[in-house]
Amino acid sequence: MVFGELLLRLSAPDRGLLLQRPGLDSCFGGAEANVAAGLASLGRPAAIVTALPRNRLGDAALAAVRGMGIDCSGVLRTAGRMGLYFLDSGAGFRPGQVIYDRNDSSFARADADRFDWPTLLRGAGRLHLSGITPALGAGPAAAARRAAATAGELGIPVSFDVNFRPSLWRSPEEAPPLLRALANEADVLFANAHDIALLTDEAFAGHPEDEQRLVARAFALFPKLKVIASSRRAMSAADRLSVSVKVNGRDGMATSPEKTLSNVVDRIGTGDALAAGVLAGLGPSHDIARAAEWGLALFCLKHSIPGDASLADMSDLEAFLDARLDVRR
Amino acid sequence: MVFGELLLRLSAPDRGLLLQRPGLDSCFGGAEANVAAGLASLGRPAAIVTALPRNRLGDAALAAVRGMGIDCSGVLRTAGRMGLYFLDSGAGFRPGQVIYDRNDSSFARADADRFDWPTLLRGAGRLHLSGITPALGAGPAAAARRAAATAGELGIPVSFDVNFRPSLWRSPEEAPPLLRALANEADVLFANAHDIALLTDEAFAGHPEDEQRLVARAFALFPKLKVIASSRRAMSAADRLSVSVKVNGRDGMATSPEKTLSNVVDRIGTGDALAAGVLAGLGPSHDIARAAEWGLALFCLKHSIPGDASLADMSDLEAFLDARLDVRR
Amino acid sequence: MVFGELLLRLSAPDRGLLLQRPGLDSCFGGAEANVAAGLASLGRPAAIVTALPRNRLGDAALAAVRGMGIDCSGVLRTAGRMGLYFLDSGAGFRPGQVIYDRNDSSFARADADRFDWPTLLRGAGRLHLSGITPALGAGPAAAARRAAATAGELGIPVSFDVNFRPSLWRSPEEAPPLLRALANEADVLFANAHDIALLTDEAFAGHPEDEQRLVARAFALFPKLKVIASSRRAMSAADRLSVSVKVNGRDGMATSPEKTLSNVVDRIGTGDALAAGVLAGLGPSHDIARAAEWGLALFCLKHSIPGDASLADMSDLEAFLDARLDVRR
Amino acid sequence: MVFGELLLRLSAPDRGLLLQRPGLDSCFGGAEANVAAGLASLGRPAAIVTALPRNRLGDAALAAVRGMGIDCSGVLRTAGRMGLYFLDSGAGFRPGQVIYDRNDSSFARADADRFDWPTLLRGAGRLHLSGITPALGAGPAAAARRAAATAGELGIPVSFDVNFRPSLWRSPEEAPPLLRALANEADVLFANAHDIALLTDEAFAGHPEDEQRLVARAFALFPKLKVIASSRRAMSAADRLSVSVKVNGRDGMATSPEKTLSNVVDRIGTGDALAAGVLAGLGPSHDIARAAEWGLALFCLKHSIPGDASLADMSDLEAFLDARLDVRR
Amino acid sequence: MVFGELLLRLSAPDRGLLLQRPGLDSCFGGAEANVAAGLASLGRPAAIVTALPRNRLGDAALAAVRGMGIDCSGVLRTAGRMGLYFLDSGAGFRPGQVIYDRNDSSFARADADRFDWPTLLRGAGRLHLSGITPALGAGPAAAARRAAATAGELGIPVSFDVNFRPSLWRSPEEAPPLLRALANEADVLFANAHDIALLTDEAFAGHPEDEQRLVARAFALFPKLKVIASSRRAMSAADRLSVSVKVNGRDGMATSPEKTLSNVVDRIGTGDALAAGVLAGLGPSHDIARAAEWGLALFCLKHSIPGDASLADMSDLEAFLDARLDVRR
Amino acid sequence: MVFGELLLRLSAPDRGLLLQRPGLDSCFGGAEANVAAGLASLGRPAAIVTALPRNRLGDAALAAVRGMGIDCSGVLRTAGRMGLYFLDSGAGFRPGQVIYDRNDSSFARADADRFDWPTLLRGAGRLHLSGITPALGAGPAAAARRAAATAGELGIPVSFDVNFRPSLWRSPEEAPPLLRALANEADVLFANAHDIALLTDEAFAGHPEDEQRLVARAFALFPKLKVIASSRRAMSAADRLSVSVKVNGRDGMATSPEKTLSNVVDRIGTGDALAAGVLAGLGPSHDIARAAEWGLALFCLKHSIPGDASLADMSDLEAFLDARLDVRR
Repeated sequence: MVFGELLLRLSAPDRGLLLQRPGLDSCFGGAEANVAAGLASLGRPAAIVTALPRNRLGDAALAAVRGMGIDCSGVLRTAGRMGLYFLDSGAGFRPGQVIYDRNDSSFARADADRFDWPTLLRGAGRLHLSGITPALGAGPAAAARRAAATAGELGIPVSFDVNFRPSLWRSPEEAPPLLRALANEADVLFANAHDIALLTDEAFAGHPEDEQRLVARAFALFPKLKVIASSRRAMSAADRLSVSVKVNGRDGMATSPEKTLSNVVDRIGTGDALAAGVLAGLGPSHDIARAAEWGLALFCLKHSIPGDASLADMSDLEAFLDARLDVRR
Repeated sequence: MVFGELLLRLSAPDRGLLLQRPGLDSCFGGAEANVAAGLASLGRPAAIVTALPRNRLGDAALAAVRGMGIDCSGVLRTAGRMGLYFLDSGAGFRPGQVIYDRNDSSFARADADRFDWPTLLRGAGRLHLSGITPALGAGPAAAARRAAATAGELGIPVSFDVNFRPSLWRSPEEAPPLLRALANEADVLFANAHDIALLTDEAFAGHPEDEQRLVARAFALFPKLKVIASSRRAMSAADRLSVSVKVNGRDGMATSPEKTLSNVVDRIGTGDALAAGVLAGLGPSHDIARAAEWGLALFCLKHSIPGDASLADMSDLEAFLDARLDVRR
Repeated sequence: MVFGELLLRLSAPDRGLLLQRPGLDSCFGGAEANVAAGLASLGRPAAIVTALPRNRLGDAALAAVRGMGIDCSGVLRTAGRMGLYFLDSGAGFRPGQVIYDRNDSSFARADADRFDWPTLLRGAGRLHLSGITPALGAGPAAAARRAAATAGELGIPVSFDVNFRPSLWRSPEEAPPLLRALANEADVLFANAHDIALLTDEAFAGHPEDEQRLVARAFALFPKLKVIASSRRAMSAADRLSVSVKVNGRDGMATSPEKTLSNVVDRIGTGDALAAGVLAGLGPSHDIARAAEWGLALFCLKHSIPGDASLADMSDLEAFLDARLDVRR
Repeated sequence: MVFGELLLRLSAPDRGLLLQRPGLDSCFGGAEANVAAGLASLGRPAAIVTALPRNRLGDAALAAVRGMGIDCSGVLRTAGRMGLYFLDSGAGFRPGQVIYDRNDSSFARADADRFDWPTLLRGAGRLHLSGITPALGAGPAAAARRAAATAGELGIPVSFDVNFRPSLWRSPEEAPPLLRALANEADVLFANAHDIALLTDEAFAGHPEDEQRLVARAFALFPKLKVIASSRRAMSAADRLSVSVKVNGRDGMATSPEKTLSNVVDRIGTGDALAAGVLAGLGPSHDIARAAEWGLALFCLKHSIPGDASLADMSDLEAFLDARLDVRR
Repeated sequence: MVFGELLLRLSAPDRGLLLQRPGLDSCFGGAEANVAAGLASLGRPAAIVTALPRNRLGDAALAAVRGMGIDCSGVLRTAGRMGLYFLDSGAGFRPGQVIYDRNDSSFARADADRFDWPTLLRGAGRLHLSGITPALGAGPAAAARRAAATAGELGIPVSFDVNFRPSLWRSPEEAPPLLRALANEADVLFANAHDIALLTDEAFAGHPEDEQRLVARAFALFPKLKVIASSRRAMSAADRLSVSVKVNGRDGMATSPEKTLSNVVDRIGTGDALAAGVLAGLGPSHDIARAAEWGLALFCLKHSIPGDASLADMSDLEAFLDARLDVRR
Repeated sequence: MVFGELLLRLSAPDRGLLLQRPGLDSCFGGAEANVAAGLASLGRPAAIVTALPRNRLGDAALAAVRGMGIDCSGVLRTAGRMGLYFLDSGAGFRPGQVIYDRNDSSFARADADRFDWPTLLRGAGRLHLSGITPALGAGPAAAARRAAATAGELGIPVSFDVNFRPSLWRSPEEAPPLLRALANEADVLFANAHDIALLTDEAFAGHPEDEQRLVARAFALFPKLKVIASSRRAMSAADRLSVSVKVNGRDGMATSPEKTLSNVVDRIGTGDALAAGVLAGLGPSHDIARAAEWGLALFCLKHSIPGDASLADMSDLEAFLDARLDVRR
């Protein structure tokens, strides 16, 4: 189960600039929903708790997420507008651009009391949260915290993707304590060295050894923590990059090979796909080697799928792991 | 010159429901901008004063309006978001639907002090305002009022389209004094009987005689007023209606014939096109007969043009007046 | 709950002929699924039992139906192909055309033993069937019969839309006994005079009095029957027709007014929408007057909605009943 | 066999103005090619003689016409540009517009000596010409005349559609002798009263009796003439009109009923479709009653088909004659 | 002349998954038809013998192939459905996918007696067959065999592309004798080492030397054989690969350089384009060096052309051979 | 201010061949207009002097250029047609293709006397011309020459892009004196070694040293010349190339690094974007180092933007200079 905002994404078609020509492509997404979609596409159970406006845009968001096989019984319909973002994906040496337009959304304005976590979490195998939610307002921040606490009480594992985006926070200095509170409940943390530095209030020296020092620090600080996963990207163009995945356990580390992705279809949601791959790969035994492999697989595959959500299924994942590239007939 | 908000319109293509399928058509519009576009398309000088966000959406809005030949030298670029509306045009017995999403737009948040009316209005032949602007916030309301007052001082005639839409007003009871203040400066008023009743704080009995009583009352109340124009629509389907136009002067009334419009392309902005037609038709001599004819022409023609703006040019208007319908080669 | 085949519809865009230009529009539908969609769009619970192929086309069908809010827990994934139909909607004096391509579909080949009706029907408020299902093969025919029998045993009311299409039957003479068996379990029957003549093995003389004689005959023959609903259409062009609805009870008849639909968006699925409207309107008290009103409403509204499924919600239905046609803001 | 220019048509999509939005729909057509297409779609043999540029546009034109089943073995590839026209179809009270851009086309510049008519016409059942060809230049004018003369010598019947469009002629006063020369060879003439007046150098008084006087005059003047066909259109909007067809023989006249066409898909090429229907309906026995029926059928059906060419086949024609409008399954 | 099935291809637009969004791109193709298209685009005579359904889909297939300049006088219209395939082209590390839906097509059900080969082959310069045809059913298998035998009797050379696709065969063990019978008539064979191993009932050890051993074995086994051509592909992503071509004669071998194709437009039909290039390049003198060059050229060029068919013309081929890449003006 | 022809570009969508499928993308461009657009997008003042036809195509061209923020007060509306070009962008090893169709355009037929240069140039900061204009006809050639002379008299600097395209000249031997006359007025010349050889009537030996000799020769020959800029492109596919920029001053040379552009969006207008970048980068101090940097930036960025015009703004340029590639949020 994930808790987070659903956004209507409006993007420029055909590699153009936003509204260079009339018309916008559309889909629905959001960091947490993307994780749910990634899991559902692999055939895993997935559910979302969120708040949507009571209008056709909210209806369409609900239909989209339901269509992906995500359980939407925990979706509230409330006052407020639909959260939006406008996307120009960029191309070549022209970087992409996101214009967020999500203030005052139904989710941002949602009252934390509206979410009855003990009921919502009943039967959930995991709760996944991200650092975007506490950035959106006091209601979502409180609700995320209560969700994590309730999960902890119920023995439901919590995963947390730090996903720190300064531009989303009105007061970025409020971020560390809020993020730390969520990390504190997590058994799986998605965080690069900068994220860990923020959580641990330390500086990051910028080199690999220091990254491992920070990882150790995080394991020391957050007692429930079993796994820290992160990705590395090196871009040579807006649509061309090299990627790899690292998954740290308390007793060891698994690192994926590096893959070069040229001619990328869609970069949005790739980090969320990675999270879904890691969570699915970890399994109950916390298999960090498989987590790194599956994380890389979904990370790479999502770059080839339009939209926010990973729609890669088990057959796509297996083809990736077997390095099969030819047309399947 | 018009003063008002520019909106990005996002509409469902191919007569479908909003986001029934992915993708949205887009264009730019707004009540006052549509009047400017209607005039510019007829070859008349037109200018707009507004505020747009400092991002690609604002850039695209500016490009669209500039492309129509409207002078944009009075457009501010300010903080705030792009005002939006979502449109489902409806079809048959399914009425259309507009979801406004314009709160906190650059225009709504614009500070009235930012508009230097004596400079902006220099050389303008007319100032056109609508009742939508004061509904959007204190800044726009104050700016509209100052614009009208400055125009009055400079001897620039003011036209005012009451365009009362209760859903846009947070406190609809605030509307009458604000609208009255603008009507007070107008020589040309676009208002049906309900609008006049609101302005004059009288009741409308719902029959034609009472309408004429209200018209007389408005002429009595607003000393600058020379012309009151209104339209009549009778819908038999979302895309089929009959229309006519009435233009009242102090000394008489001109009424257009009724026209039936089947298979309508776009109903949005038809009232604004009518206003453009009336203003162009009136001319310096306040020719109400021609105003009714031209108002009807642009009213009807706009129903055949996609988007918010009337793009009908003088040759279209002449074809309408001559009842020519065959393909022009 | 409905039981029936889901089809991928592939249609010519922009009012052209099939493949006049490259590219096809697509959606999913099917007589029974359309009824479920119509009910779900009105906010009623709806579920479907069907069989879909184990490939991406089946995945997409599932996503589409799930997206409409229809419970798909009873959907089987089996061997076989996706049922298809190609559609040219026609225009003006050029009638539309359907090319069925549904032989050997997963549903047509489905083994009746695969459907565990006592479990599937648990909690269902109603079972809806149509005469298309028994035409598709021995498996579907047997499954439909068992479904109706099981519903009868469980006290779940059954509705049945005769929907007799000779071209779908390999041996049309097999139709009457199979259809009669389903009608025998029904409390609500969708059937015009020709359909009743087929069920009752009588001739239809073609005039209204004889239709009422046949209605009486059906009530006599089928003891569970409480309601017989039918529609009347008079076409003046492929995209222009007049329609009305009649709902017969054992004690009386309700007839809707006639409505003229010009400029039709989509005619497919209108009969299914009517069925959904009648079922929703009947309610537990078998209110035939409301059934006729709501049946007409959904019948008319569906003509304005692209695709197979009625997406009209309660607000659309209310607008229709109140004869409101103007844009809703 | 037809002789005439093929044009690339570039039209505004979605009922908009030309280039109101980026992008143009495209197809190929031309008065004579449209007649060939109409005949080929009915399953009749059809061939075209024309000249196309030696570039990809000419290749695409050839592919389009070949695809319709028209024999293109008589198509020359020569220097010169592709003839173009830009089309805005209009809507409602906004009439459509054609911008011709066909000067200096391969066809207009074609040398009459390039066409070896005795060889080209071998085996042809009929030669069809129109009054557009002589307007395009000295080469086409001479070639058309020689084609008609050769056909006359070979005993191949000639049909001629006067199709007088003043704007195509640089010197409209040159038209009558050129048109008369072609009419002189024709057994079937497509001409309304104005066309006949031009051919006969008489005035048309504008009333039906005078039309019949002119018809008689034409029969007197042109000794080979057996049939004169014409259409009548009364437009109430750019996409709504009433039509009928009249076919005069030397011994009598056949008149079709009047049909009202609302919600027209495409008006271009409807006169050419009518010609194809008349020619196919006349048959070897010059059956003017069937010619009027089939002429009306293709005239009406073409209004429902996008593009220049009638694609109506015999099943469409039969459905029209039987007044069948329901979806064919 | 080619003999084979025409398929309607329905593919996901814009690099998405099948039906991820509504709508499918469409074109027509098929292994043998693609060879004919490749040859016709180079200006060579080309004809097809096939069977198509008697409906609009068959009409559209015919129009498409006719449009490419392929002689269709040998196309039968028979009972049965249109053969289809659904295509997701894949992207990046997500391999493409083909869902065949061609059972019971008109071609698969065609009676071998319907094809009168002595008449059909009259005047043909070559007969081209592929190993797909015998996989489709007893009728096509018998017809292909008779076609090859008749060509042999008439002294018309036969080329044969083994094209062994196990998934198309109901009983893959039936393949070798059927394929061998066709290879036995061929002077030009398109076969890689695996294909030859199948034909010769030997094992392939997987290294280049063994490939040449198999080639020699094939030349020994099939006495008419003069040329064996094959391609090599090394994929680094679904849209990125390296390719080369090898053409073996009895007296020598020609090998093309290797080319890297990044950012591939369409991979379907590239092998068929290669075959067309080899056949055109071989010429009457069996010039294997030119065959390898032209084969590589069309192989590479087809990767840049959307659809099944190579539309590369002689100017494209020459540009490739001259390594010209700049825009031609 | 630029002087040159505006063209309607009609291009094949989705990387296909021209009219492989119906429909064409459209935009407006032209060598000089593209320079103006590139400057306007960077926020620099820009104006165009040209002649457009008096029809909807001319209207649309005007709207497009006005929309980009280019001052169009010097645009004439005259007789003549719209200049067109058809574009197939090519892909992979298939080079693109341009079919010019601009003879007899309004601009080509424009009378040099219609341009009142002293008035038009008032207040201009620079005049930019290209070698395309004199190729189009005697009128444009004379007008360009007078424009340059008038600018010289008014002390307005002139930049000149040689842009020699032999296919545009009816008599290519007329080119050198006409081009030399314009170069003679220029302070900034865009010319590669071949262009300079043409201007100086010398031979180019093809190696870098000889290029520098020619540069020196040009500085010697043209006394006003301060800067010569040129680009280098090495293509490895139609959509993949390496580029660099060189800017020579009288006292030194600045060379940009080489950049590899894979997966190019649009190659048209990249040279014009480079010119805009160089002109903007040079600034009043003729900073050749910055000119080379900014020239490279706009050159590279334009390859990622659909259409003729560079829409890169200062933030894009800064991102390029800072090597920032990640999505901007």
